Amino acid sequence: MSDGIPTESFPITPRNRVKRLHERGSYDKAAVYAILDAAMLCHVSYAIDGQPYCTPTLFWRDGDRLYWHGSSASRMLRTQKGGVPVCLTVSHLDGLVLARSGFNHSANYRAAMCFGTASIIDDPEEKVRGLADVINRFYPGRAETLRQNTAQEIKATTIIGMTIEDASAKVRSKGVGDDEEDYGFAIWAGVIPVETVIRAEQDCPRILPGKTRPDNVAAYTDGRRLDAALTETHKAYETLK
Amino acid sequence: MSDGIPTESFPITPRNRVKRLHERGSYDKAAVYAILDAAMLCHVSYAIDGQPYCTPTLFWRDGDRLYWHGSSASRMLRTQKGGVPVCLTVSHLDGLVLARSGFNHSANYRAAMCFGTASIIDDPEEKVRGLADVINRFYPGRAETLRQNTAQEIKATTIIGMTIEDASAKVRSKGVGDDEEDYGFAIWAGVIPVETVIRAEQDCPRILPGKTRPDNVAAYTDGRRLDAALTETHKAYETLK
Repeated sequence: MSDGIPTESFPITPRNRVKRLHERGSYDKAAVYAILDAAMLCHVSYAIDGQPYCTPTLFWRDGDRLYWHGSSASRMLRTQKGGVPVCLTVSHLDGLVLARSGFNHSANYRAAMCFGTASIIDDPEEKVRGLADVINRFYPGRAETLRQNTAQEIKATTIIGMTIEDASAKVRSKGVGDDEEDYGFAIWAGVIPVETVIRAEQDCPRILPGKTRPDNVAAYTDGRRLDAALTETHKAYETLK
Repeated sequence: MSDGIPTESFPITPRNRVKRLHERGSYDKAAVYAILDAAMLCHVSYAIDGQPYCTPTLFWRDGDRLYWHGSSASRMLRTQKGGVPVCLTVSHLDGLVLARSGFNHSANYRAAMCFGTASIIDDPEEKVRGLADVINRFYPGRAETLRQNTAQEIKATTIIGMTIEDASAKVRSKGVGDDEEDYGFAIWAGVIPVETVIRAEQDCPRILPGKTRPDNVAAYTDGRRLDAALTETHKAYETLK
C-alpha cells in the first residue's frame, strides 16, 4: 500500500460526509493523502467515558495505514489498546481572508479528517518497522545511521496504528468572496497569506568536530516551506521502503 | 474576565493532569492563555454516540471563555446545542529535534488542552458581541468599519461558547536531549526550527481605487511570525473591549 499512486475514493458515510460548505469537500484518496503527507503534526480525538480528548502528536502514513507513537504511560494510548474509534485530523492554515462584511471573512486552509479504529501495534515485526519508519518518513534513510534501539526503548515505546476506513478533505484556496452588492463599499479587503517555514538548523553543541548535516535532512533548508519538505521526504520514504 | 492578567492556576483533575513527560506540563492560566492567544486555529473534539470527531476551526478567547463559530448546518454545532463536553486544543510546532538515537528524536512545541461544556450562544446580546469579537480579536477595530451584519446573516451564524473548566499547557523548548553515552557517536544531531510567518497581503482585485491596508491589519506584516501578530492583536482586542 505504499505505491503512492492512489486512484480511488474513500466511501462516503454519515461520519465523513462534508456537510458545511460541502463544495469544498473531497473524498479522493489522493486529495486526503496530499494533505496528510505535507504534515508532521496531527490532532487525534478519542473519548473516554464520553469525555473527548484532542491530543496533538506526530504521525506518519504508510498506504491506508496511519501511525503515531508515544510512551506506554500515555493516557491516550492506554485507552486505545483495545482498539477504539478515533478521528485523526490534519490541517494547514494558508491565509487570512478579509472581506467587506464580517460574514464573508474566512481563512484559506487544507484539512483532512480520517476515521478508523486505532489499536496498539503488538506484532514485533510491525513495531520494529514502525520505529524505523517514524524516523525515515521525516528523514529518509536516517534510522539506519543512528545508535540502534535498545530492548528497553522498544518496550517503552508504544506505536498506535489505524487503517483509514473513511476520510474527507476540505480545502479553501481562493480570494475574497464578497456578496456582489458589497464590492462597492470603500473597505479594504484581501488575503494575507500564511506559511510555515523552516529556519537554519542549530547544531547540537556537543556534536563531534567536522560532523555536518547529512543527506537525510537535506530537504529541510532555511526558508523552505515545511509542507513542501515533508511532501518530498514522504515520497523519498515511499521509494526507500 | 478580559483584564488579560490572569494570576491563578486551573484545578488539576484526572482529565487535564499531564501524565506523559509531566515535567513539560503547567496548569497556570498565564501559560495556557499565552498558547491560546498566539493562535487563530484550534482543533475541537467532541463525540456523537461514542464516535469522536476532531474539527479544525477558528476560535477566540475572552477571559475564561472560548468561542468558535460556524453555520447552523454544521454537524459539530448541532450536536453541541444541548451543551456537550468538548476538548479544545491549540498547538504550535516550533522545531524538529534530531538526536543520536531514534528514541530521543522529538519536536519543540507549545500545546494547550482546554476542557469544558460547550453550548450555543442563544443570548442575543452575547451573540451580537461575538460577531464583532470574532473580527476584532484578529483585526482590532475592524468590525465597526465593515458592512453591517444582516438579520439573515446573524440567523445563519451559530456561535459556540465554553467556559474553561480545567486546562493544561505542555511545552518543549530546548535542544537535543541525548543519553550521556550517546554524545560520542559520530552522528549529526540538532534542532531544525520551524515557524509560521505572514506573507505580503494580496489586495482583492475589486478593491476601490486608492483603498490601502487599514490600521486594523497593521499587525500582519510580511515576514513576521503569525504567533507574534496574533498575541499583539489579542492584547489590542482586550484593550478595546
